[in-house]
Amino acid sequence: MAVSKKVHGFISQSSWIRRMFEEGNILKKQHGAQNVFDFSLGNPSVNPPPEFKKALQQISREDLSGVHGYMSNAGYLETRESVAAFLRPLHGIPLGAEHVIMTCGAAGALNVIFKVLLDPGDEVLIPTPCFMEYRFYVDNANGNTLFVQTHDDFSLDLSAIREAISEKTKIVLINSPNNPTGRVYDNASIQGLSEILDVKSRTYGRNIYLISDEPYRDIVYDGVEVPSTLKVYRNSMTVSSYSKTLSLAGERIGYLAVNPALSHIDEVMAGLILYNRTLGFVNAPALMQRVIAKIQGVTVDVDEYRRKKDILCHGLASIGYEFSKPDGAFYLFPKSPIHDDIAFVRALQKRRILTVPGSGFGWPGYFRIAFCVDDATIVNSMKGFEEAFREGS
Amino acid sequence: MAVSKKVHGFISQSSWIRRMFEEGNILKKQHGAQNVFDFSLGNPSVNPPPEFKKALQQISREDLSGVHGYMSNAGYLETRESVAAFLRPLHGIPLGAEHVIMTCGAAGALNVIFKVLLDPGDEVLIPTPCFMEYRFYVDNANGNTLFVQTHDDFSLDLSAIREAISEKTKIVLINSPNNPTGRVYDNASIQGLSEILDVKSRTYGRNIYLISDEPYRDIVYDGVEVPSTLKVYRNSMTVSSYSKTLSLAGERIGYLAVNPALSHIDEVMAGLILYNRTLGFVNAPALMQRVIAKIQGVTVDVDEYRRKKDILCHGLASIGYEFSKPDGAFYLFPKSPIHDDIAFVRALQKRRILTVPGSGFGWPGYFRIAFCVDDATIVNSMKGFEEAFREGS
Repeated sequence: MAVSKKVHGFISQSSWIRRMFEEGNILKKQHGAQNVFDFSLGNPSVNPPPEFKKALQQISREDLSGVHGYMSNAGYLETRESVAAFLRPLHGIPLGAEHVIMTCGAAGALNVIFKVLLDPGDEVLIPTPCFMEYRFYVDNANGNTLFVQTHDDFSLDLSAIREAISEKTKIVLINSPNNPTGRVYDNASIQGLSEILDVKSRTYGRNIYLISDEPYRDIVYDGVEVPSTLKVYRNSMTVSSYSKTLSLAGERIGYLAVNPALSHIDEVMAGLILYNRTLGFVNAPALMQRVIAKIQGVTVDVDEYRRKKDILCHGLASIGYEFSKPDGAFYLFPKSPIHDDIAFVRALQKRRILTVPGSGFGWPGYFRIAFCVDDATIVNSMKGFEEAFREGS
Repeated sequence: MAVSKKVHGFISQSSWIRRMFEEGNILKKQHGAQNVFDFSLGNPSVNPPPEFKKALQQISREDLSGVHGYMSNAGYLETRESVAAFLRPLHGIPLGAEHVIMTCGAAGALNVIFKVLLDPGDEVLIPTPCFMEYRFYVDNANGNTLFVQTHDDFSLDLSAIREAISEKTKIVLINSPNNPTGRVYDNASIQGLSEILDVKSRTYGRNIYLISDEPYRDIVYDGVEVPSTLKVYRNSMTVSSYSKTLSLAGERIGYLAVNPALSHIDEVMAGLILYNRTLGFVNAPALMQRVIAKIQGVTVDVDEYRRKKDILCHGLASIGYEFSKPDGAFYLFPKSPIHDDIAFVRALQKRRILTVPGSGFGWPGYFRIAFCVDDATIVNSMKGFEEAFREGS
């Protein structure tokens, strides 16, 4: 064995999402891309908005000295100011540039936060279904992950969370709009969660942090609003990226924002900036920092995703699939027509339809469809979805 | 205490380099940038070459779908092929795209490698003087760092390395051309090191890996050649970035290249790709991957650095400073005129000259001058360098 013992184990249980994505690439080579219906990865098909393109071209033409060099590890001050100015009214708290750190996407931000807050053995509590890569991020910081199930409609089960919190709990991580369910945790849930964390922090005599991973905040449907965790809970941080709202997943640009009222905020910010550097990110990519500073508030056309969602929901409902309509994000998480979600995903794969089993999100018996794809992919996949459904039920 | 115990300790002993850089920013605000002589950070002043600008503008104008989205975690195949094609003749080994992973700079690459290779408590042996951030990277992977001094001329002390290797040693990390000394480890040293590692790997019955961090490979003077470690040692990897050779430090684009003959290479590559994702990098920034694929082999004008080096060396030698002329990189590492290098750096700082004490590189009694600055900064700093020297000696 060449790699470490832990890595050896992790390689074999690696991500379902990426496995399906890579298998899809092989299928596309065999059958042609147009004959493969790839719903595996949350890789936006909708192009970045024209404002992005314009800002990128403008910045590429500028002839300034040193603009591709190092800046402070927290990011350009102008970019942090621009992000803070956008978030301030959104969350209704006095966020300043000093509370924002530009990061290598939300994944980078979470790795930094876990590294700074967790002592070995500390627990991070995460409601399921959820994006399973969180486990790796927690493990990177020598912490342990504790999963707590949501209700059947994927809303937060506050009693279960209250029960699960112990003296080991350091962080509760939520992701809303949620991957894979599309559920937005409502205001009452966030208020309730906040009260639980207040009580439990007092009970155990140490702060429990609420981290909200919100890359899909701007992609919501039917007037749903995403409540602010920063507004209701003092020891909170929000993490986000431009991967989904600007379709820039490959550019690795995101941020973390810390509640100005957070306890010991100076030490925490110093730790976050230090680890943004020493985990090897050093700083968020310079050019993209300059681009996004110019286009705060701009998003992809959410109507595009609404249309895709409607086509998909209508098609699957007609066939007989059961699912909750998503409040946001670009995922649908239907019930598998047969008990074994992995077997069902394999059945879909035989029809060149790539999805991800619910088992890959801590929720067997369901499967995830990432509908951030061309409309034609959705429409043309319906025959296969129907065949697999008939075969299974 | 809000942050973890370890982070609490690390914040206070954080990097000398960054501390001087941040103090320099304050001085610049007080006295104006032109009155501060900032030699603190290896942040290239020489602009990226025109080929970079051209490639960036061309790519920014292209209207392709999905080019800012996720790609395989190892990077674009075209980029990996382009890097491999450049490295193949340089190292004289049959490197292919499958041996290259695009990373978030060399710092990202090293964090990934350490995480994959180190079991808790494994040791990484590093010759000093060296870039001290390596310590953090090793610690991130729960490994321990063992420093071994070089000879007085900063060449590798092979006897000391042989003595220091134990059953705990998993990795030997070298950096050549070296930060902070500018020394290039010569061919005989690399051959000798390789033989020691072969013998010790057999003695302890497990592979010791040789990792070579080479971001300054293209910046060498007076016909010096940087020997290839990949060519002479089987279990080796090379790490590099475009931070220095293309002046893109803020863009976080680099790579790691693995010797095709490495033991258990399939498992090691799988581990490296997995951790390139799960440490939060996910992939190297997409746009920069596409840019550098087009301009392999292009570098900044090294003559610029040669001229700066000559102005600096000539000036400091005239004053009476003692130093070895650097073989490469853009650092000079003179002896401090007084025993206490930190006191001497403070004395320079009073003259608004920012350097970094040798203590920050595991080598007290010396100090580092990063001469990747405007010629005027070097020329105008000489008065201050002279005053501090006279005062100290």
